[in-house]
Amino acid sequence: MKIDGQHYRTIWLDSDDDTVVCIIDQRPLPHQFIIEALHTVDDVFVAIRDMHVRGAGLIGAAGAYGMYLAAVDAVSHDNPLAIIKRAADKLKSSRPTAVNLSYAIDKQLDCINNVLSMSDIPAKTKTLAQTIADEDAQACFSIGQHGFPLIRYLSEQKKGQPVNILTHCNAGWLAFVDHGSATAPIYASHDAGIDVHVWVDETRPRNQGSRLTAWELEQHGVPFTVITDNTGGHLMQNGLVDIVIVGSDRTTHTGDVANKIGTYLKALAAQDNDIPFYVALPSSTFDWVIQDGCKDIPIEQRDGDEVKHIQGLDGNTLKSVLLTTRESNTANYAFDVTPARLVTGLITERGICKPNKASILQLYPEKRVND
Amino acid sequence: MKIDGQHYRTIWLDSDDDTVVCIIDQRPLPHQFIIEALHTVDDVFVAIRDMHVRGAGLIGAAGAYGMYLAAVDAVSHDNPLAIIKRAADKLKSSRPTAVNLSYAIDKQLDCINNVLSMSDIPAKTKTLAQTIADEDAQACFSIGQHGFPLIRYLSEQKKGQPVNILTHCNAGWLAFVDHGSATAPIYASHDAGIDVHVWVDETRPRNQGSRLTAWELEQHGVPFTVITDNTGGHLMQNGLVDIVIVGSDRTTHTGDVANKIGTYLKALAAQDNDIPFYVALPSSTFDWVIQDGCKDIPIEQRDGDEVKHIQGLDGNTLKSVLLTTRESNTANYAFDVTPARLVTGLITERGICKPNKASILQLYPEKRVND
Repeated sequence: MKIDGQHYRTIWLDSDDDTVVCIIDQRPLPHQFIIEALHTVDDVFVAIRDMHVRGAGLIGAAGAYGMYLAAVDAVSHDNPLAIIKRAADKLKSSRPTAVNLSYAIDKQLDCINNVLSMSDIPAKTKTLAQTIADEDAQACFSIGQHGFPLIRYLSEQKKGQPVNILTHCNAGWLAFVDHGSATAPIYASHDAGIDVHVWVDETRPRNQGSRLTAWELEQHGVPFTVITDNTGGHLMQNGLVDIVIVGSDRTTHTGDVANKIGTYLKALAAQDNDIPFYVALPSSTFDWVIQDGCKDIPIEQRDGDEVKHIQGLDGNTLKSVLLTTRESNTANYAFDVTPARLVTGLITERGICKPNKASILQLYPEKRVND
Repeated sequence: MKIDGQHYRTIWLDSDDDTVVCIIDQRPLPHQFIIEALHTVDDVFVAIRDMHVRGAGLIGAAGAYGMYLAAVDAVSHDNPLAIIKRAADKLKSSRPTAVNLSYAIDKQLDCINNVLSMSDIPAKTKTLAQTIADEDAQACFSIGQHGFPLIRYLSEQKKGQPVNILTHCNAGWLAFVDHGSATAPIYASHDAGIDVHVWVDETRPRNQGSRLTAWELEQHGVPFTVITDNTGGHLMQNGLVDIVIVGSDRTTHTGDVANKIGTYLKALAAQDNDIPFYVALPSSTFDWVIQDGCKDIPIEQRDGDEVKHIQGLDGNTLKSVLLTTRESNTANYAFDVTPARLVTGLITERGICKPNKASILQLYPEKRVND
C-alpha cells in the first residue's frame, strides 16, 4: 500500500537496528500518521492489547516479531526457554479472539524447540517472523486474485455501473501486513479498471471503518461513502449493495465466522435481501479445532470507556470527548459470530470455498485428520 | 417525568406569556439541561428541523403549538388564512418521515377551517395544541399500561431475574410529551417493582440512545447499559435479551414500521433468535393510507456532517470533533422500515395488536373505509 506515494507495510524491522520493530500506530489515524518503534516484548504486548496495531493478520505478525524480540532478550539471561515461554503466554493473552496470534506464536515456539543451539534462536525467530509477515502479505494478495472475479462478474451484470460493496470494520491493508483481506479483491478490481464504490461501516466503538478503511481507500483512490453501522440494512433493502465482503478474526473449519461486533447483523440483512455475503481470510485465520463457533469462540470484552469516549479532531488537535453521562454503565463486546448458514463463501489464498468442513478441507487437504 | 425531582413535560406554554412555547433543547443533553423559548413559527420550524425537539409524538405536539403561534401572528395581518397555510406547509416540510407532524398540523387546519370568526383562531388553536399534547401524554400512559403485562409475564417466567429489554433510539419521554412510547411499559414495570434492565443502543449518528434514553432512565432510576448499535445481535444470540421494544415514526395500517435507522437490523436479529419484537406507538403514528411501508414511506436523508462530527464533553465544555478525514464522503439516512413480518406486535393506547390490517382495524374500527 502506498501512503502519499510511498510504499509501506504495516510492520517491519528498523533498517538501522534490526532489534527494533516498527509499526504504524493506528490510534491517531486518519488524523496523524505516526511510526512507533517497539524495543521489547512488553512494548509489543501493549501495542497489541491497546490496539496500536490490530486486525487478524497484523496481530499475528506482531506476535511473531514479539517472539523474536523475546528471543533476542532471552539469550542474554539464564534459562532463556523459561523467559521465552513467559513471553509467549503474555503475548497470547493480549487479545483472545483472533486466532492468528496463537498461530504465529506457536510457530515460533515450534521453531525454538527445534533449534539445537540457543545462540541461534534470535536469527531463527527473526527469519520466521519475516516469513510469517511475507506469507501474510502474499496470502492477502492471493485473496485479491481469487475475489476479483466475483466483483468483475457483478460489474458485467451491471453493465459497468459501479459495483457497490459493503464492508464492516477494517479488514484492509492496516489489518494485515499488506493488501488486506476484504479489501484485496476491491483493490484488485479498482486497479483493473472496474468501477467500484465501497460503503464503509463506521464500526463503533473504535471506528475502524471510518478512521482506517476510509483512509486506506482514500489513499488508494477508491470511491467510498462512510455510513453509520445502522445503515447497511436500509441500503440492502433498497438495492444499493451488490455484495458484502468482510474479514474475520477466527473462522472455524465448520464455517462459523468471528469478526468485529456487528458483522452478524449485516449477514442477517444480506440474507434477508438475497445479497452475497463473503468472508475473506488467509488460512492462518482458520480454527481447525473448534466445531461450534457461536458457542466456543471466546469473545473479548473490552473496557466500557471505549463506548463512553471517542476521539476526534478539534481544530488540529486530537481530543477525546465524553459521549454519555459520567455514571452511565456500558458494555463493550468486541466481536460476534456469524453462523455459517449466513455466509455465501470464504475467499482464501487458495480459492473460494463454501463455509462448511467438506468444502474447506477440499482446499486444505493437509488439515484432514483421521477420525 | 421528573428531572432532579421536578416534574416536566417536554413542551409547554410559558406561564407568564402564553404566546411563548417552551421546550427542552435536546441537543446538549445529557451534558446540559437548557430550556428554550420559541416565539415564532420560524423558531418552531428550526427547532424541529435541527432537532432541538425530536421524536414522533413531540414533533406532532411541536407542530400543533407552531400552528398556534402562526395563528397568533396571522390575525394581526391581512389574509391570515394564507399566512397560516404557508406556516403549515413550512412546518410539514421540517421532517418528512414522522407522520405525527402532518397529523397534528392537519388537525389544526381543520379546526381553523371550522372557526367562524378569525379573531377566535388563536384561542381555538391554543386549546387544540394543548389537547394534542394532553392526548399524546395520555396515549403514552396507556401504552405503558398495555405493555406492562408483557414484561410482568417475562419476569414471572424468569422467576424474578431481571428482564432484559433492548431498545433503539429514544422512544422515551423526550420523544413525546410525557412517559414515552417504548419506555412507557418499562417505567410502568419498574414502578410496579419488577426488576428490569435496559440495553440502550447508542443510536448513531445522533446518539439519541446514549444521550437521551440513558439519561431518562438514569433520572428515573432504571438500571441500564449503553451498547454500540453493533452489539444487539450478539446479546440476542447469547440469551441476554428477553424482549425488544422500540418506537415508531410512522407505521402503516398494514404493519410496516418506520423507525430510526438500524431498527430493521435489530428486528432481523430478534427473529433469528426467537425474541419478541414489539413496537410501541400512539395511534397518531399510524399511516392509514400507505400500504407498502418499505416502498412508500419517505426516508429522510440528513446532512452527512452528522456522521462526520460528534459532540461530547471535553472537561466541562461541549465540543464537536471530526471523526473522519475532512474529505470523506458520508451518507446519512435517518430511518429504515421494518417489514410487518418481523414485528411480533404493536402496543397502542387501545391495546396490543398484530402488525396487520385486520388486527389494527379491530382496535381502530372507526378507520375502516368501505372498499
